[in-house]
Amino acid sequence: MDYKEIYSYYLSLIEKRIAEYVPQLEPERLYEPFRYIMKEGGKRLRPILTVISAGIVGGNPEKAIDCGVAIEILHNFTLVHDDIMDNSPLRRGRQTIHEKWDSATAILTGDVMIGYAYRLLPNSAEHQRADAIRAIFTNELIEVCEGQVLDMMFNQKKEVDKSEYFQMIDKKTARLIESSALIGAHIGLGSDNEINALKHIARYIGLAFQIQDDLLDMTANQNNFGKKLGKDIVEGKKTFLIITAQQKAESMTDKKLLEEFIDNNGLPENKIMDMDDLFKRNGVYDIAQKEIDFLFDSAKKSFNVLKKNQYTEMLLRMLESMNKRVI
Amino acid sequence: MDYKEIYSYYLSLIEKRIAEYVPQLEPERLYEPFRYIMKEGGKRLRPILTVISAGIVGGNPEKAIDCGVAIEILHNFTLVHDDIMDNSPLRRGRQTIHEKWDSATAILTGDVMIGYAYRLLPNSAEHQRADAIRAIFTNELIEVCEGQVLDMMFNQKKEVDKSEYFQMIDKKTARLIESSALIGAHIGLGSDNEINALKHIARYIGLAFQIQDDLLDMTANQNNFGKKLGKDIVEGKKTFLIITAQQKAESMTDKKLLEEFIDNNGLPENKIMDMDDLFKRNGVYDIAQKEIDFLFDSAKKSFNVLKKNQYTEMLLRMLESMNKRVI
Repeated sequence: MDYKEIYSYYLSLIEKRIAEYVPQLEPERLYEPFRYIMKEGGKRLRPILTVISAGIVGGNPEKAIDCGVAIEILHNFTLVHDDIMDNSPLRRGRQTIHEKWDSATAILTGDVMIGYAYRLLPNSAEHQRADAIRAIFTNELIEVCEGQVLDMMFNQKKEVDKSEYFQMIDKKTARLIESSALIGAHIGLGSDNEINALKHIARYIGLAFQIQDDLLDMTANQNNFGKKLGKDIVEGKKTFLIITAQQKAESMTDKKLLEEFIDNNGLPENKIMDMDDLFKRNGVYDIAQKEIDFLFDSAKKSFNVLKKNQYTEMLLRMLESMNKRVI
Repeated sequence: MDYKEIYSYYLSLIEKRIAEYVPQLEPERLYEPFRYIMKEGGKRLRPILTVISAGIVGGNPEKAIDCGVAIEILHNFTLVHDDIMDNSPLRRGRQTIHEKWDSATAILTGDVMIGYAYRLLPNSAEHQRADAIRAIFTNELIEVCEGQVLDMMFNQKKEVDKSEYFQMIDKKTARLIESSALIGAHIGLGSDNEINALKHIARYIGLAFQIQDDLLDMTANQNNFGKKLGKDIVEGKKTFLIITAQQKAESMTDKKLLEEFIDNNGLPENKIMDMDDLFKRNGVYDIAQKEIDFLFDSAKKSFNVLKKNQYTEMLLRMLESMNKRVI
């Protein structure tokens, strides 16, 4: 099988497990939004990573499906709660839960999802590394909350630097991707070396992924990416692009536009193109692309520790595709 | 030691463990509200129940402290999120977290508390029943969310009956008290019979406790109970008193007042005394007190299965005090 076939195969198993696991229970008011958020969940990058990590270390990937789904539920829980806090009306082109229902429903849906995620993790009778897996999962839950708080604080600050930016995206985005791989590697009974290598690979992928997200907000082909361009600019998000621009901009005009962006927590839509020009003038897109390439290259360097099998090959191919954002 | 001394002793251990466990970490924005809600937490009924349940079945109560604190954190997580949903400005006489900070902070504080609660549960290397304890805890997290949704739906309905009321308070209140005892009994390696008996006892205590709460909203000595009388009436809560009154009231005046209560989701403060008269006229307080006595008596009936030791004696004394609401 080529890597797309492997991906499709495990994606279908993951979707099947999600569909059968997410409850069709009473109270409907709680479980309907849970089913709603778990449907049409996109690429399922995290559970795929869990599943292939089990394969990479020589385990049976199918045994990692439940843990992958647990991670995916945890990820979606963060989306449900983040959307309330960010007051976002849309997610993946559909109404967010707090919009379609209300905030109370969205809070409770997120809360109950944590319970359902934990319920999917193996217990010690089912897996010899159950304790390790649960510890990673619990750390992850804590870190992702810390990351969201850092993100909130980050967006309230006038001045931030790259190290704060990296700390925030590390906790908010990269660690969950790291945990996805780690848990899969434990399910497959990976060695310490393998686990360490997968940890680094996944961490770099996660960081690259976030910076790419920041970049694509301005440069994506709108039809492919499905989002409006410049959303982060309108919302006043301090992305990699903004922080880089703050470091690079020297002309009065550029500094003024960046100040306006900071002071007003964003810019009106008609100024998105001015910011685009500013980014281009200051080489911001190139710097972002180089950072992304550097991170993906760093990830690749850890591959030599891993077993050579179809799952390792698949992860490498996935990583290359991600670097181009084909998938 | 008499039962108050035992209570004080374990209460001090619980308070000490809470103080040392709840993190003094960055980000402050997340951990300051966590410390805030865990301070001055009242009677700590749930962790006390966990601890003495371990002793009742013959185990070392001190080994159950961590699980008790986990339960107490879970309980407080529900308060933090419920207060957002109910838009409550005060809790235990202090500002709620979403009031003192904001809703986003309160959502995230609650979320991270779940992680910290899980982290306190034993793993399989630490306790032979770790899997059972974790399963009870996860079920509890799910049930408490279901209970809160039922409560929300319950308060939106015009007509409810006692079975719906009991289903709601069972999930929202009684089960957590039940889980507190169950987890303690597992820590102490209780037998199936002991666990079953403690399950029943705790369940009945939980139900009685909630009905008592409903009753005390109207009848408490304001200074002792620390709350304003008739809060539930103003907020339009469908308490045991209201549901009983709906069944009993026959006069046009009474029916009209109850309809006004339902139609307007509560009554203005100046009508609290009218409702008090209505409750008295229809014997509602007596019915509530009889129900409470019945539940506490049912709890007492399961005591014959339990070992006779100072912890069992203490639980019985606690139960009697609760029936009088002395503690």
